[in-house]
Parts: sequence; structure tokens; C-alpha cells
Amino acid sequence: MAKKRILIVGGVAGGATCGARIRRLNEDCEIVIFEMGSYVSFANCGLPYFIGDVIVEEEKLLVATPALFENRFNIRVCTDTQVMSIDRENQSISVCDLKSGEQRVEHYDALVLSTGSQSVWPDIQGLDLPGVHVLRTIPDSRQIKAQLENIHRAVVMGAGYLGLELAENLHKRDVQVTVLQSSDHVMPSLDKEMAAYVTNHLQKNGLNIKLNCKATAIKQNADHSLQVSMDSGESLNVDAVMISIGVKPRTELAIQAGLELGKHGGIRVNEYLQTNDPNIWAVGDVVEVKNVITNEWQLFPLAGPANKQGRLAATDIVRKKIHTIPSIPYRGVQGTTVCGLFGLTVATTGVNEKTLQQFPDIEYEKVYLHPSNHVGYYPGAKPIHIKMLYDARNGKILGAQALGESGVARRIDVLASFIQMGGTVYDLEEAELCYAPQFGATKDPVNLAGMIAANHLRGNHPLAKWEDLADTHTQVTDDQDDVDQMLAFIMDDPYSQAQIVDVRTIAEFERKHIPHAVNIPLDSLRDRLDELSQEREIWVVCGVGQRAYNATRILQQHGFRVRNLSGGMQTYANYEE
Amino acid sequence: MAKKRILIVGGVAGGATCGARIRRLNEDCEIVIFEMGSYVSFANCGLPYFIGDVIVEEEKLLVATPALFENRFNIRVCTDTQVMSIDRENQSISVCDLKSGEQRVEHYDALVLSTGSQSVWPDIQGLDLPGVHVLRTIPDSRQIKAQLENIHRAVVMGAGYLGLELAENLHKRDVQVTVLQSSDHVMPSLDKEMAAYVTNHLQKNGLNIKLNCKATAIKQNADHSLQVSMDSGESLNVDAVMISIGVKPRTELAIQAGLELGKHGGIRVNEYLQTNDPNIWAVGDVVEVKNVITNEWQLFPLAGPANKQGRLAATDIVRKKIHTIPSIPYRGVQGTTVCGLFGLTVATTGVNEKTLQQFPDIEYEKVYLHPSNHVGYYPGAKPIHIKMLYDARNGKILGAQALGESGVARRIDVLASFIQMGGTVYDLEEAELCYAPQFGATKDPVNLAGMIAANHLRGNHPLAKWEDLADTHTQVTDDQDDVDQMLAFIMDDPYSQAQIVDVRTIAEFERKHIPHAVNIPLDSLRDRLDELSQEREIWVVCGVGQRAYNATRILQQHGFRVRNLSGGMQTYANYEE
Repeated sequence: MAKKRILIVGGVAGGATCGARIRRLNEDCEIVIFEMGSYVSFANCGLPYFIGDVIVEEEKLLVATPALFENRFNIRVCTDTQVMSIDRENQSISVCDLKSGEQRVEHYDALVLSTGSQSVWPDIQGLDLPGVHVLRTIPDSRQIKAQLENIHRAVVMGAGYLGLELAENLHKRDVQVTVLQSSDHVMPSLDKEMAAYVTNHLQKNGLNIKLNCKATAIKQNADHSLQVSMDSGESLNVDAVMISIGVKPRTELAIQAGLELGKHGGIRVNEYLQTNDPNIWAVGDVVEVKNVITNEWQLFPLAGPANKQGRLAATDIVRKKIHTIPSIPYRGVQGTTVCGLFGLTVATTGVNEKTLQQFPDIEYEKVYLHPSNHVGYYPGAKPIHIKMLYDARNGKILGAQALGESGVARRIDVLASFIQMGGTVYDLEEAELCYAPQFGATKDPVNLAGMIAANHLRGNHPLAKWEDLADTHTQVTDDQDDVDQMLAFIMDDPYSQAQIVDVRTIAEFERKHIPHAVNIPLDSLRDRLDELSQEREIWVVCGVGQRAYNATRILQQHGFRVRNLSGGMQTYANYEE
Repeated sequence: MAKKRILIVGGVAGGATCGARIRRLNEDCEIVIFEMGSYVSFANCGLPYFIGDVIVEEEKLLVATPALFENRFNIRVCTDTQVMSIDRENQSISVCDLKSGEQRVEHYDALVLSTGSQSVWPDIQGLDLPGVHVLRTIPDSRQIKAQLENIHRAVVMGAGYLGLELAENLHKRDVQVTVLQSSDHVMPSLDKEMAAYVTNHLQKNGLNIKLNCKATAIKQNADHSLQVSMDSGESLNVDAVMISIGVKPRTELAIQAGLELGKHGGIRVNEYLQTNDPNIWAVGDVVEVKNVITNEWQLFPLAGPANKQGRLAATDIVRKKIHTIPSIPYRGVQGTTVCGLFGLTVATTGVNEKTLQQFPDIEYEKVYLHPSNHVGYYPGAKPIHIKMLYDARNGKILGAQALGESGVARRIDVLASFIQMGGTVYDLEEAELCYAPQFGATKDPVNLAGMIAANHLRGNHPLAKWEDLADTHTQVTDDQDDVDQMLAFIMDDPYSQAQIVDVRTIAEFERKHIPHAVNIPLDSLRDRLDELSQEREIWVVCGVGQRAYNATRILQQHGFRVRNLSGGMQTYANYEE
């Protein structure tokens, strides 16, 4: 019997993993990887850090070479080779050697499309000018690095992970960086009020951040610098422009072959990463994936999922084409991300509130908290700002966002694990996690998130949201979506139906407080209950929510209708942004 | 109706948490905490770091004061007050004011015993000599600190968490420290081969570690220094001796009251922390707890579980004595621990192999791995040494031990979360965790642990254990328990039934290898298959297990009987210890 031929288009992340895994499962088949670029299996996540000289040697970015694939995995790698078309009927592809220009036809028993994604370019003039860059490949990074000594000012378009990592690394190389973001906050994976921390942090570290701002044109000045015009009417003169407004699946081949695509433009695959052609699989940035929380298709172009998909596609290919082995379906993506920016870690898992608002069937609740990464009595404690979303009906955790200098990825990884396992806020209460003074607290931030949410669900701890406050007054404004405007109204209105009681100390209150809030420090609350009206609901606020929780319990038991403004003044500060 | 009276004996950790939680659930009852010492709610986990001047100010150790309990929680705190006896029939306790000597009787509707634990003292002479200390309270730490300038050499008896933390902190204060441990490895929560890393690390950092060593007597020398005699026949002259060989539940009161105890000497409680007297609850170090993995009673005197228990006992007391609220049972302890020693983090969750060996019904398997905390191409990657134990029948994770400089608590917390949720090694394969170059890898250490174990369970990746190797040769030795001896035998025996194939490079092999191993570098393995015999099973070894995995796959498919020596030369080095 002839050896099975497995061809893989694209040799980074998903494709490379897929090839190696197929070989481990089967020694007999022939495996060939075709890579349009000159490198396979390179560390694309490391490129911004190569620009910033955090990673100094270019060769470190080469995780595996064609020679390693050949010697270790008996996989042939054809770099600088573009796959031009797929002939599904004859199970063959037409490939072109980009160096010689020669074309040839290669037969396959199974084909894997790991063609990845490409940059989205804005629809503006001047993108072809020298000094306008994207950062997707080693040659891209080499080109940027070669010009760095002449780049003193740069615009980065797009404040997603890559854009901000690039901005930080350019800043490290003494470039004055302005980041333009078309939406109202940085990092689209975060909700707006959580992104406010990031913006603050980036500004403190010297980046210029322009939100709600789009470039409208790039022109070359007489001195060869670039003028970036913005929709605000302003313009900036810079030496370089980095385009990082997003990526889209590289689907030319799939379209030519008539493979089914999803509504987001990615290849549609089943739970085994198989396309609608039973001889073709697809993995990585080029496919649409199902979100495990919403069960909706989406794009999620990150390296971790690409690798997992490559591994699972390999297993399915061997199972269906070569010999029987157990199947392993892909469970979908969960939305776990992490990013480090000037010492701040920003991480997410599950879905954010923006996303949940698109699914009216999901009744969610949220908590904000600001615990320390470890007990306060051990030196060096740093706050972690957490927002957690959970299902109001059963307490299932739906998503979390966290930011801080230390211990952030750890807490998000724990929450990611609970989400994967269908865990609830009640499970978080009970979690037995690492505790020693320098590592956490007897009530870990994860425990606390669970306790606050579970107390809320049990009715012991009603939570107020800034939006709730606004919603009770929708009659006074025509723009129901404008939370900021409503808030401003509420806070200026001494006759609003809620009385805000600030239970911090007098000194804390005097430093800053919500307009028209009344100050009754927690420790005197029991003695001053007669100052409060039973007529109006009470929203209690403190620094981060903990003293207000105690106050809520006291007031609730004395017959007041009361809610804790979740996250306290820390969260208020974000809503003010 | 008279107010319910809830009395709490012991005001640290569990007792303090219990009181605060009862108050949050009910404003009406009377709550009194009786504390024998002078402080409530102090940070006992911080005491070693107070000795080491990591925590400089003593007041930082006072997490909450009696005044705070009074003002915030309306809880009366009686410090320096010992509860002498319990009269269960009359629901009262007899208390003694230790300052005035006055005794009084206090009635209770509910009583909480949070009496904690006390040091186990060795059965040797000289314990009453000046210079012999335990570290359990703030006064203990004050006493040690006051004498530090005269302490140049010290013996710490006991290499558990507290003993080693204390040893590190004494070393920080320029004390020359010798640690005596009666068993064959430090940190009883670890298995021996994992503890070998810790011993090495402590020695490298200047501690003198004596294993299998017990003190037999302490005598005072003419110069007032102490002479510690050991069962080895040696003796040490030191200025201080710290006793840290363990703790035992402080059950005098429970015994006097005739409450049921368990076989380990702790108070027996049900899942609501209620004793066999329906008016008495007990929490913290004084109770026995059920292990969630083995379902056996054990002692687990740590602060995290004590706090959780205090919270749950409070809920149950209010539910049963005051008003209906939802019940929350305690799920038991899981064994999560963490300890930092000279920059090394050592963490565990679930059970260790020593424990599993006592449960022949549990068929377990284990994997060793040594991944980096983040991708190697990003600077500063550090290894994490992991041992994971899982159920051979269904892949359920049973326990894990990990050590390293960075990212250790994070991985153990993730594994703890999966254990809590009944997760399997297959779930670990699929976990979507935080990845960016400075935070992890597309295959996180947790994913890798799952993949290695799942591949093993699927039959793709048979693992060998050093003990397996020995077990196949039990006929040659009388002492079946002496793995070291068997190993030595096997390794010296060119005719043993397994051939050891080392697939590292020639240079690596030449630096160090297992006696009688054959070197066939992985990348030439396919060309050199004819050098191997089909007669004898092959055990493949490499640096950490990854290349050997690839070799195992190649050999298995070519018809060889083959196993990967789990953890490679890294783990071999531990077994050599």
C-alpha cells in the first residue's frame, strides 16, 4: 500500500504542531509542510520583544528549523513555497516555488490549511509610503529594527495586544509613541471601565493614547517624515506608522477551493477541525471557532488555541486516514488572554460584559474587587483589580478580567480552569489555593470573588451597579445608553431616590467622595442609624467594597433597603474616566 | 426573646473569622471571643518573617484588634482569658481571667472551639534550658528576636514548612543554622525525590541539613551555649534550639467535655463543623478533617482551611440557632500548600505518592516533567519541576508537587482547581491558560502534564518508573523496599532485561549518563534501529522526557517494546540523591 501523503499549508504554530503530532502518531505516512515565508515555526509572539531588544538574538525566534523537522520528525519542509490552488476532486494542490517560479502539483490524502491571518489595513491613503509597517514576520521585524535609529516618533494604529506590546517596545527604544484607537477604550478584550486602568498606566509610562480617534490619511512631508491626519482634525508628524488594527483569516485558498466559510470570514470546521471537505482540515487563525460560553462562532487568532487545534486535527487525520485511535474533539475557545505592559499584567478569560450584552438570554451579574496579591502585612503587596461575570441563575462563572503588577495570570488561570469545568461562584468560595504570606491570603482573591458573588446570589449582599443607579432614572434623559450622562445627573441630584452612604473614615471621605454622598464611618454606623431614611434605598460605598459589605449587612438587618456599590471608590474612579 | 449567646474559644484564624461571619449574618445575637493569649487575629504565618526582619514592625502582625472587633462587629473580646471547662448539660463554660485570677461562668446557646494546636515537644532532656524555643505566638517571636544578637549558631529541629521558614529567616539574621530532620527527606508534604531539590537548594544557600537525624539530648555548656547530641553520635554546640517537629490539636477542653475525638487526636466534626454535641462547633487546627481525595480523616493545621471552616461553622450556627439561611457544607481538605525558601517556591495540592501507597484500592500513575515557566526564547525562563499523580483508571488528578523560582503557585493553583472540580488529565490537555511569551507557553506546563499523562493512558506513550525498573528484578534482592539498592544493581547489570537507550546528543551523554546506557541521539534513531534488540524492553531516557517521548513513538511503531523513563535525567538526578 502506498504511503499516505499529508500536506500542510503553513508552517507556523498550528501547522507545525500538527505535522509533529501526525509523525508521533504514525511513522509511515509522508508529511510535507509548505510555507510561503522563509521560516517555519518561528516565535511570532516574540516579535515585539525583538523590536524592543528584550530578545536580542534573532535566532532565538526560530523555535524549530526545517532541518529539525527533517531529522527529528521526518517531515519535509518547503519554505518560500506558495500553495496556489486546491483541486479537491483530484486531491491535489498546485504549489509554486517562489524562488525559482516553478510550479508543480502535489497529491494529498489529507490536507491541512494553517494559512493563518493577515493584517487588516485601514482604508486610507498613504499606506504604501516608506515608514508604514506591519509586524507579522521576522523580515517585518528586521525591517523595522533596521530603521529604528531614524525613528524618533511613531504612530501605532490600534490598541489591541500586539499594538500595545509594539508601542511599549518602541518606547523602550526611545521612540515617542502615539497610539490611535478608533473605539472608546484600549484592549477590546476588556470592558471599558477595566481598560481605563490600562490607559492610565500607559499614559503614566509615557505613551500618548488617543481614543475615539482614527487616522484619515498618511502623507509624506518634505523632510521624508510622515504626517498622519486624524478624524479629530489634528495631525501628527512622525517617522513611522505601525498598522495594528486587527487581523483577518487568510482564506484565499479556501475560497478558491469552495470550502465553507463562516460569517466572520473564517473557515468553518467541525469539532475535529475538519472542513466540509472530508479530506481537508483547517487550524489556527484561519478558522472560526465556537466560544464555549456563548456557543457562537467567532475568530480568535491566538497561538495557544492554534497549537491545540493542530494537535487535535493531527489526531483526527491519523484516525480517519491511517489507523484507529481514540478521537479527541475540540471543545472550543474560552477567551483566555494575557498581556504584559510596562510591568502591568492584563489578563482575561471567558467573555466580557460587552459580549454578554449581546445575549439577552444570559442573565448575568458582575462583581468588582480589588484585593492584594498577598497579605498586606508581608511587604510589597500589590492590588489586583478584578471584574468577574457570572450567571445570575446558577452562579456559573462566565468571564473575568484582571489587572495588576503581580499574581494576575495566576488568578485568571484559576478562573479559566473553573470555567472550563463548569464551575460556579460557590465553587470559588471553597477553592483551596496556595497560601503563605508572600503568595496570597487565607481568602485568596479568587475565594473573595466567589464569596462576594455567592453572598449576592444568596440575598445576603445585594450589589448595586453604577448602571443600575442610572437605570432607575431613565425618565430624566433621552439617551438611555449614555451611562456617564446619567451618572452625572444622579450625582448632582440630591433628591434622587437613592441615598449614597459612604462608610469610609472622615479623612478618606474628605479626600474624595461621590457628590451628595453622606459620610457615616462604618464603626459608628450602628449608633447613627436614625440619620438614615427608610424611604429611600441606600447605596453604600467604601474604598473597595469590603467595609460597605459589613455596612450592607448591618443596614439590611435593620430593615433598610440597601445595596453595596460594587468595587467601591476604586471602581467609581474607573467609571469617571 | 433573650438574645442568643454565642461564645467562641480562641480568637485566631478560625475563631475570629467565625465571629465576624456570625455578626454579618445576624445583628441581634451576643458574641464573645475568649482568647488565652494577649492577641486575637494575629498573623501567625508571618512570625518567621518577623524574626527575619522581612516584616519589621510588630504591629503589622496584628490583623485585627479587640477594639476593631468591638467597634466594627459588636463582638466582645476577652484576651488573657482561659476557658477552664465546659458544662454541656447546662450549656455553660467556666472562664478564668488570667490577670486577676477570677473565675466566672458564661452561658452559651452555641459554643465554638477554635483552640488551635500546640507544639509537639520531642521526648528528650534539656527542653527547659534557656535558649530552647518554639515559635507559635507574638511573645515567642519577641523573645527570640530579643536574643538574636547573641545567637550565632542554632539548631532547628524539624524540616517542615515552619521549621524551614524559620531556618531561612535565622540565616538572614546571620545565624549559622543546622536543621535536623528525623525522616529521610525535608518537607513531609513532598515525596522524597521531589524533596531532594529542596535539600539541595537549602544547602546551596548555606543551611546545614541533617536527614535521618534526631536530637537525643540538650545540655548547657559551661559558657551557657547548648550542646545538642544526636542519634548519630555527633553533637553540635549552638546558642539556640528551635523546636518545630510538628503540632497537635489542643483538645484539653474537648476531652474534659467528653466530645468525640478522631483517631488522630483531633475533634470529630460533621460536614457543618458541628461536634457530637449539637450546641458545640469546632474549627481550625483542633479538628480532624476529611481528605477529599482519600476520604480519610486527617489533621491539616493550616490557616486557609481554618478560615474556611470558621466561615462555614458561623453559617451553620446561625442556621440552626437563629434563623433559616441556606446551609453550606464543608467539602474537606485537599492538601494545597505553598512555601517560599531562599527564592524557591515549593507547592503541593492533593495527595502525594507516599499517601497513595497506603491506599491499595487507588490505582495511580505518575509523571515527572521539567518545563520552563515561560517560553525559552524570552529571557529569564526558569524550570518548574513537577510531579503529578493521577488515577490510572479514569485519569482523575490525585495530586501534584511543584518546585521552581517562578510560576509555581500558579500551576499548583490551577491543578488544585481541576482536582476540586473532579478534573482529569484529559481536561488538563484542553485547558486554555494565559499565554504570552513572558507568562507561559502555548503548551503551558499544566497542558504538558496532561498531555504526557493522557498519552500514557491512551497507550501512545508508555512510561517507565525507576521503581518499575527495580521491580522487574526483585528476585535479586531481599530488600524489596530498597529502591536505591535495586537501582544500583540494575545499572551495574549489563544483562538486565531492559536496555537503556539515551537519546540525547553525544556531548550531553558524555557529561553524565546512566551506567550501561547506550547513546543513540534522537535525530539518528531512525537510521540506527538495527542496533537495538527486539528481545529486551527498551527504556528511553533524555534530558527531561520530551525527546524520549519522540523516541518512544518511533520505537513503538517499529515494533519495539519501549517505555520513556519519566522525567529523564533530571528525575534520575533526584533518585540518585
